[in-house]
Amino acid sequence: MIIFPDIDFLHSLADVADLETMTRFRTAMKAEAKGSVGDAFDPVTEADRAAEAAMREMIAATFPDHAILGEEFGTSGESSFKWVLDPIDGTRPFISGIASWGTLIGFVEGETARLGMMSQPFTGERFWASPAGAWRECQGERFAMHTRQTVDIAEAILHTTSPDYFDARSRPAFDRLASAVRMTRYGGECYAVAMLAAGFIDLNFEPELEPHDVVALIPIVEQAGGIITTLAGSPAEKGGAVLASANPALHEQALRILNHPQ
Amino acid sequence: MIIFPDIDFLHSLADVADLETMTRFRTAMKAEAKGSVGDAFDPVTEADRAAEAAMREMIAATFPDHAILGEEFGTSGESSFKWVLDPIDGTRPFISGIASWGTLIGFVEGETARLGMMSQPFTGERFWASPAGAWRECQGERFAMHTRQTVDIAEAILHTTSPDYFDARSRPAFDRLASAVRMTRYGGECYAVAMLAAGFIDLNFEPELEPHDVVALIPIVEQAGGIITTLAGSPAEKGGAVLASANPALHEQALRILNHPQ
Repeated sequence: MIIFPDIDFLHSLADVADLETMTRFRTAMKAEAKGSVGDAFDPVTEADRAAEAAMREMIAATFPDHAILGEEFGTSGESSFKWVLDPIDGTRPFISGIASWGTLIGFVEGETARLGMMSQPFTGERFWASPAGAWRECQGERFAMHTRQTVDIAEAILHTTSPDYFDARSRPAFDRLASAVRMTRYGGECYAVAMLAAGFIDLNFEPELEPHDVVALIPIVEQAGGIITTLAGSPAEKGGAVLASANPALHEQALRILNHPQ
Repeated sequence: MIIFPDIDFLHSLADVADLETMTRFRTAMKAEAKGSVGDAFDPVTEADRAAEAAMREMIAATFPDHAILGEEFGTSGESSFKWVLDPIDGTRPFISGIASWGTLIGFVEGETARLGMMSQPFTGERFWASPAGAWRECQGERFAMHTRQTVDIAEAILHTTSPDYFDARSRPAFDRLASAVRMTRYGGECYAVAMLAAGFIDLNFEPELEPHDVVALIPIVEQAGGIITTLAGSPAEKGGAVLASANPALHEQALRILNHPQ
């Protein structure tokens, strides 16, 4: 029997993941003191695995027929209902003690992302969406999320995670977009996409995402009024080069700039 | 009469600044709705000015003979005791809703930074140092800060704020350093330097800092066991191209790589 999950269940998944990530966040130094290279990066690996395992266990107990795709443990089960999990999106900031990482929980029906949640337990924030809308909770306060209505690309605030992720094709494309906008910032990870949904930034481009990096964010962006697709304008559920925009008019302009050398 | 300030007074300055920044953080969207370009960036300008004005007023009332250098209102007074203020270091993350910004409060005696504080009120964190040591407070808990003892550059975690700040000289220098370390991350602003002092990252390079960007951070890095100088190895109080390192051995290796094309 398959029952469609509600948002309370996603919050329960985030709760168990938060316990595993927060007990290991900012413990890198202690591990490093042990001396070896492997030890230095243990806390994030441990947190990643423990958080995904905890979420998998809860899903298996509640929705035993659902499939699960997780960053750490791959795919299990086969179903048109699939959970897509990234226990720590943003391992670099996690290791660095910086709270731009998040736990991503997505739920796909067929090929389409239906539910999504991002949890950032250090700042006490969650961002989520269902077909009913998009919300964020920040240190106990709840807000409906609505993207910005910036329609002039020259006014847009653009984010991406790192210039190191670009290749010979995506780098000039991103440079063209960066020179068309008002401001560019790096280091955002999933947190920047959450801020796009929350109405604080306009564009986020990532040249190469895996499904687990993006599925949870799709409903969050779309239900807040934004749009998120591949460079080709296709659904982003399978990952690839992905652009998120605050609104369709801006998306069209940004895609044109990314795809067409002048 | 000149009295040497204590850390409680820096906390009081941070308290008045926090009030001004936090009431305006994440209000950019509302201002932008007013329509004009100028309005879109008002909240951060307002927060910057209001926070610096509040700190200046408190300094003038308590230490009327001290000089003040602030990002927003320039220099006032003349004295061998000088306050160096950056009400919002990291206006790009501030505008974007991302808590990598901080209020920087530095105190200089002669040419040397003696006291420093960085306040990040959204995450509930402060980082500070006096000749007695370096501490951080995080959501009510207090910790002494000690930098990492990474001595092998190949193990180091390197941060910088943005690739867009590099020029024809600093870009290849940074690229050399980035290819020598274990991991590079962008978007750090002053928060990355605080994480270096707190023992979570190893190196932070910024190609062009003003005095107000760096003075407050100098005692924080040094009292935690780190080292912070210009590329030439000179004191960083006047700004310029500045490298902060977790320890002297690492600093020496990183400076050599930055300064010497292979």
